[in-house]
Amino acid sequence: MKRFIITGHKATTSGEFSLNDMPGSAGRMDVLCRSVNSCFFLSHSLREDVWCYLILLGEPNPPITILIKGNEVKRLNPDERSTGALIKKALTLPCGEKFRESTPGVYIRKGGLKTLLEEIDVTILDENGEDIRDIQNVPDSYLLSDHLNFTDEETELIIDLPKISAGPKVMHADHTITVILNEFDRRKL
Amino acid sequence: MKRFIITGHKATTSGEFSLNDMPGSAGRMDVLCRSVNSCFFLSHSLREDVWCYLILLGEPNPPITILIKGNEVKRLNPDERSTGALIKKALTLPCGEKFRESTPGVYIRKGGLKTLLEEIDVTILDENGEDIRDIQNVPDSYLLSDHLNFTDEETELIIDLPKISAGPKVMHADHTITVILNEFDRRKL
Repeated sequence: MKRFIITGHKATTSGEFSLNDMPGSAGRMDVLCRSVNSCFFLSHSLREDVWCYLILLGEPNPPITILIKGNEVKRLNPDERSTGALIKKALTLPCGEKFRESTPGVYIRKGGLKTLLEEIDVTILDENGEDIRDIQNVPDSYLLSDHLNFTDEETELIIDLPKISAGPKVMHADHTITVILNEFDRRKL
Repeated sequence: MKRFIITGHKATTSGEFSLNDMPGSAGRMDVLCRSVNSCFFLSHSLREDVWCYLILLGEPNPPITILIKGNEVKRLNPDERSTGALIKKALTLPCGEKFRESTPGVYIRKGGLKTLLEEIDVTILDENGEDIRDIQNVPDSYLLSDHLNFTDEETELIIDLPKISAGPKVMHADHTITVILNEFDRRKL
């Protein structure tokens, strides 16, 4: 299973956000929606071997983690708005520290990066990392940030983790995921 | 200048469409909005060396071509909705067969693929083409289709044009653009 974890530093943890204002009052939820799209969509199918974790760090109830499993998810469409609706629905579900299913293949729990790092061996997607094309055994699980840099607290958690780059220019999270998955496709992984 | 042309086979040519229903009544306008995003956005800048052409073929007034110039465009944001708003605004502008500027860097004219092919040497992005990584001199200008295949009429226009592939799996148009631009970045083109 390939895993992509995206931190949404301002992304709201309230299910009351407006689908008409995801870049604004929902705290750049649009970035996370596009990352979900990049994780799963092929031209006529979904990537069933990908799981996508969204770490929501905005008010009122951070941290929250949403997990979307490519092998289970239903009703996922490529546009930002409908993905936002799935996230919104998940956020209305009361949850504890164990993942709880909201809609098919979409799960939610309390907790953030620290918990995930205890569960998964993660590689950081970072412009200063080694080029993925030069790596013989590409890792399965990647961490990316949204439009903001990792915080000092996050940096401390990840400082010793391996770093990989997707190319010479710093791209948006969703574009980076697309390039990484293209590299997997080429290696038939 | 790099150019990407995306055909929107059902994309509305009316400026009256709802930004809340771009995948539905606007004829998969969401696909075109994501393609615009992929053409231009880097992490902290725009790709000023890209022009993006959207060919809108839906009712009531097809064909219409919208051109967005990376070296001129203003008020472009990465989310689908705000890009949709720029397209919507352009569609309300009466236009003829010459490009007319709607908002800074966004142009509109009557006409479609046939006219563009008389102006630009185009390569088709096609899963059966030669892998872009194997091509010594990568072309500048590419044609992609939205969620639908090229029509018979379009196929006749492009049948003799060169074909290039972005990888072994068939991807959405926006993801394909991202992979191609990553290849340009790596070659410092």
